[in-house]
Amino acid sequence: MRILVVNPNSTASMTDKIAAAARDVAASGTTIMAATVHESPASIESRTDECRALSSLLDTVVAHAKTGIDATVVACFDDPGISALRELTSGPVIGICEAACQAASLLSARYSVITTVPRAVHVIGENLLNYGLDRKCQSIRSAHIPVLALETAHADASERIRAEMHLAIKHDNAEAIVLGCAGMANLARTLSEEFEIPVIDGVSVAVKQAEALIACGLTTSKRGAFSPLNERQSECALA
Amino acid sequence: MRILVVNPNSTASMTDKIAAAARDVAASGTTIMAATVHESPASIESRTDECRALSSLLDTVVAHAKTGIDATVVACFDDPGISALRELTSGPVIGICEAACQAASLLSARYSVITTVPRAVHVIGENLLNYGLDRKCQSIRSAHIPVLALETAHADASERIRAEMHLAIKHDNAEAIVLGCAGMANLARTLSEEFEIPVIDGVSVAVKQAEALIACGLTTSKRGAFSPLNERQSECALA
Amino acid sequence: MRILVVNPNSTASMTDKIAAAARDVAASGTTIMAATVHESPASIESRTDECRALSSLLDTVVAHAKTGIDATVVACFDDPGISALRELTSGPVIGICEAACQAASLLSARYSVITTVPRAVHVIGENLLNYGLDRKCQSIRSAHIPVLALETAHADASERIRAEMHLAIKHDNAEAIVLGCAGMANLARTLSEEFEIPVIDGVSVAVKQAEALIACGLTTSKRGAFSPLNERQSECALA
Amino acid sequence: MRILVVNPNSTASMTDKIAAAARDVAASGTTIMAATVHESPASIESRTDECRALSSLLDTVVAHAKTGIDATVVACFDDPGISALRELTSGPVIGICEAACQAASLLSARYSVITTVPRAVHVIGENLLNYGLDRKCQSIRSAHIPVLALETAHADASERIRAEMHLAIKHDNAEAIVLGCAGMANLARTLSEEFEIPVIDGVSVAVKQAEALIACGLTTSKRGAFSPLNERQSECALA
Amino acid sequence: MRILVVNPNSTASMTDKIAAAARDVAASGTTIMAATVHESPASIESRTDECRALSSLLDTVVAHAKTGIDATVVACFDDPGISALRELTSGPVIGICEAACQAASLLSARYSVITTVPRAVHVIGENLLNYGLDRKCQSIRSAHIPVLALETAHADASERIRAEMHLAIKHDNAEAIVLGCAGMANLARTLSEEFEIPVIDGVSVAVKQAEALIACGLTTSKRGAFSPLNERQSECALA
Amino acid sequence: MRILVVNPNSTASMTDKIAAAARDVAASGTTIMAATVHESPASIESRTDECRALSSLLDTVVAHAKTGIDATVVACFDDPGISALRELTSGPVIGICEAACQAASLLSARYSVITTVPRAVHVIGENLLNYGLDRKCQSIRSAHIPVLALETAHADASERIRAEMHLAIKHDNAEAIVLGCAGMANLARTLSEEFEIPVIDGVSVAVKQAEALIACGLTTSKRGAFSPLNERQSECALA
Repeated sequence: MRILVVNPNSTASMTDKIAAAARDVAASGTTIMAATVHESPASIESRTDECRALSSLLDTVVAHAKTGIDATVVACFDDPGISALRELTSGPVIGICEAACQAASLLSARYSVITTVPRAVHVIGENLLNYGLDRKCQSIRSAHIPVLALETAHADASERIRAEMHLAIKHDNAEAIVLGCAGMANLARTLSEEFEIPVIDGVSVAVKQAEALIACGLTTSKRGAFSPLNERQSECALA
Repeated sequence: MRILVVNPNSTASMTDKIAAAARDVAASGTTIMAATVHESPASIESRTDECRALSSLLDTVVAHAKTGIDATVVACFDDPGISALRELTSGPVIGICEAACQAASLLSARYSVITTVPRAVHVIGENLLNYGLDRKCQSIRSAHIPVLALETAHADASERIRAEMHLAIKHDNAEAIVLGCAGMANLARTLSEEFEIPVIDGVSVAVKQAEALIACGLTTSKRGAFSPLNERQSECALA
Repeated sequence: MRILVVNPNSTASMTDKIAAAARDVAASGTTIMAATVHESPASIESRTDECRALSSLLDTVVAHAKTGIDATVVACFDDPGISALRELTSGPVIGICEAACQAASLLSARYSVITTVPRAVHVIGENLLNYGLDRKCQSIRSAHIPVLALETAHADASERIRAEMHLAIKHDNAEAIVLGCAGMANLARTLSEEFEIPVIDGVSVAVKQAEALIACGLTTSKRGAFSPLNERQSECALA
Repeated sequence: MRILVVNPNSTASMTDKIAAAARDVAASGTTIMAATVHESPASIESRTDECRALSSLLDTVVAHAKTGIDATVVACFDDPGISALRELTSGPVIGICEAACQAASLLSARYSVITTVPRAVHVIGENLLNYGLDRKCQSIRSAHIPVLALETAHADASERIRAEMHLAIKHDNAEAIVLGCAGMANLARTLSEEFEIPVIDGVSVAVKQAEALIACGLTTSKRGAFSPLNERQSECALA
Repeated sequence: MRILVVNPNSTASMTDKIAAAARDVAASGTTIMAATVHESPASIESRTDECRALSSLLDTVVAHAKTGIDATVVACFDDPGISALRELTSGPVIGICEAACQAASLLSARYSVITTVPRAVHVIGENLLNYGLDRKCQSIRSAHIPVLALETAHADASERIRAEMHLAIKHDNAEAIVLGCAGMANLARTLSEEFEIPVIDGVSVAVKQAEALIACGLTTSKRGAFSPLNERQSECALA
Repeated sequence: MRILVVNPNSTASMTDKIAAAARDVAASGTTIMAATVHESPASIESRTDECRALSSLLDTVVAHAKTGIDATVVACFDDPGISALRELTSGPVIGICEAACQAASLLSARYSVITTVPRAVHVIGENLLNYGLDRKCQSIRSAHIPVLALETAHADASERIRAEMHLAIKHDNAEAIVLGCAGMANLARTLSEEFEIPVIDGVSVAVKQAEALIACGLTTSKRGAFSPLNERQSECALA
């Protein structure tokens, strides 16, 4: 089984971290193919960044799809391009926000998301509303850290995440924490042990969810919203 | 990894079918332990059946838990006892309704559930509302078949399921179908090929979801709603 | 008119208190029949407790129903077994949570529930969501008291309830308070006078609501969700 | 106990019918005081009618309140003036729409409202959304009859109501019916027997609900939304 | 183009302020006709005030409509009588609450409303729920000022509004402020400059929204909820 | 006042039609600047199309913004890029879907959207949910026409729109119709006269809404979700 894990931004160190998290949990028969979207912003921290990344993200995934992939994991917590990729590829397409929040719903009655920049709070809130996963999510908190600060293992960054976790537990009664950025993938186990509650990294959960769907013979419905594009659209999509 | 798949009713042939579906998708390192709840109704087709099954369901799972299990899958589409089992055991507890509808949300923009008896429509509706998974679920349709008719491979039963699938696709624009009874576990692949859309069996999806969470080192939060019971409650729970 | 008021736990002193609250408001022509569920936990403080109580609760009500009852009030704020009892009996079945919160909706624009253990907050929240009564409910607060502490008239217990009422009024702008445990039935009038706002005990309100429905010739619909069980199920239900 | 049942329109024959329905269910110790709002439209069939009725409705109730009343039932299914009357009087104020739909929620999993004119469908829909009672209400159907046609016992009127009831049961899976006009109060028992499901008249249910609240010592909260008006407002209110 | 801006209360100085705000933004071809509802409370600060104002409000608008108006703006933040006026007149009818909160939705991801008396919080909340505009509205805050204090340019009044704005920005993360009273119309520009965020006055926005709809040839639908009243109703309405 | 009306696709004839609709309603002091996004698909009929259009859409608007514009209207019913453009520019940014559905909410109690391809139904549904405008929208219907068929004035295209309008009015009780594609801008007035209900074109409504906000001195909040991008992001955004 070949799962493409795509980092929609152009920061290769983040791709490495994501790939490590993916490989750490992948089954023995699974090949993790990690891709960076080179023609993209260094990080996705705004709606503008997302718009700048999308077309290249599609190109990157379509190029890999030609070599044969069974599923795609989009490793950015804004879940960019998910619906388009469901139109363009045949395997399951999983965003790490939806996968992580689904897992949190299975493991707790109330959870909180800790993300990076304040601006992301709004994007995540819209996604959860759309997924129907807003009901058990008690709060979406920004740790006020730039995404790339996570790449330099800045001590202050993880302190700020810890501080928001304390607030989420104390004030929002969070029973589990979802890490709201792919760049936090390496922190989940440590924080989980330290706080003694589930701390969920979307990358690992999404990879396993992809394996799960493929093992069950399930893939994106090609009837309706994600049906194949007609000729004009295909040309456009593959151009 | 040991996953307990428990059939909350007392019909052993259904347990066999469920176990087969579970083993069909389980990873090589996973041991599926299948259990029937002997002191239980022959099928769960009403709220009364559910109440009659619950205490024995807890006993059955607690007894297995003492022998060491990593996760529990409750193989009844009403998701009975899920929250209590999260209080009583340490591993993840997955209901097949929530697991299946989460998968459907990843694979389609709109899906329908086809269940057995009309009475179940209301139970499933309440569950989906509580899970927040009601938004993408276009309809919950009863095929008007008793649960145990699925055990005799009654030809008419599968015809009625097909008929409701046609209506769900035509009238409700369903892009995927969730089979709303553990007793339908063996039908998913055939119907999926026939209708050329994802047809989702909750048992297989829940087993893989359990494997996924364990692989990621995640288990039920023991802070808050599912925290360990105090002494009086534990005594009661284990009595 | 004969109304069964059933205490789903096995603590007889709580049944006495509930019966007193019921008789205090019952009309002159109403006979209150109070029942304890002997094969049940001493209190319902968790999902596990609820599962342990349900089958015996059904037996207790079905046994009384054979002697002729016009309605059933389930005197536990989790509203356990309500739907099953609607399947099994012909008279109205009223849970004290739904009855109390309906009353609060008629008397205030915003109200809060004060319950016993923290774990109950989640159960009540699910019920209110399902009833549609979550909109006017500003908060569900735990007073952090074990249910049985209410039986010993522990001074600290009522102080904690008062403290949460002050917080609900000050921070949540609650205009009325619903007491979230049958064991608080004797506190409503005192607290109402002290705080000068409506303080609602579900037992008394549910008894009167039952009288109201019977006086109007209304009883549970036997079409659809609560229709009579078929033969196999009836046997099971009455066994 | 004295309960004022006020008919917000000026049609005395409707007041008589409402009073009869109220007295039919009232307890022996209850005095039903029926009032017609003389300076009002002959029926409330539009938002304009409601605006025309409101000030006189307030005057009528305030005048009766001076003679001593324990509760007020507003006998029009649009529930006009409920909130203002809660500001102006001290006893509970019950609208027949909210009371009837609360009762339907206790007796069925899904119900439908059958009302008179098409325009009322929208008004009732807004009320149910605000009450949180929209979830279990499957449909609000207009029987396309003018309110006053109910006063002449027009055979066609009750036929149209029957026709909509059949549609609600068949197409909307209604398990109970709420009669969406005070002028239908006399039809509930006959239709209930004929259709063998609960058919709910709001007038009788609201009168019993008022009795219930008073018996429990409960009345409108005077903290917050319905607190007493200040001097300027009181003058205005009572002018 | 002639737009009627009607002040539903009887305080002429407030009408003058509203008219000034309207004329300040009106297009050169627009004539603003400002009307006071003389038979009305001095301010609308309660549900009772609203009931007292409604019939005269309808008379005032109907009288002006006979002289020819293209649209009506109701300049009270409770949006009183909007639906009735849509039945009675042919041009668009705009309430300042709905218009202001629609504008806030276009300009920010989260906004707060600052209103006068605490009682109004509940009325506005109901309106926003009904409009569907509750999702982006983070909070509705009362500045605890009587409406008429705004007429005397009481320094303390604007200080209290400022104080609530600070809280809304700090605690509720409001990105824009909606002024929740027509009497605040003159404060919007000053506060907007001072706080450097959009501060929205509903009167000006509603006037421009009315101009916009008329320029597009759009007016109230006369099919369904706001269709013309039949004879009996028209007589009543115009009496 | 200079308003940029941007057509996110590369079909110049559609830009001409949109510009004509905009100029038809613009005030005398307004200059409509119409722009085509040349590096974009010929039409936006899928999520993939949207992803392909976004970055060039941003470039086009940013380039025009440098020449001075007061507001931006995005003339595609999927409202692509709205949030990013709010980050990048200082004037109001209006999407035609949100503007049209806000107008429909002011003019009717229930409305329907008629769009082009079936796939768009899902995109529009997500947008309305996010805007909170889903409550009054009774249905979103696809006329099963490719977007570009509207450019050739294909007779069949307008017949299919008419057919869906008839269904929306008859089956969904729609009181107003929103045209769900910028390419239908020229049809609104004709269809409105023919069907005698409001038929709303988003382009004209959005242009007037932009004029309205500017006249009131209102623009996008620069605090929070749409605050200016930091250096790295700005470089990226403007590159």
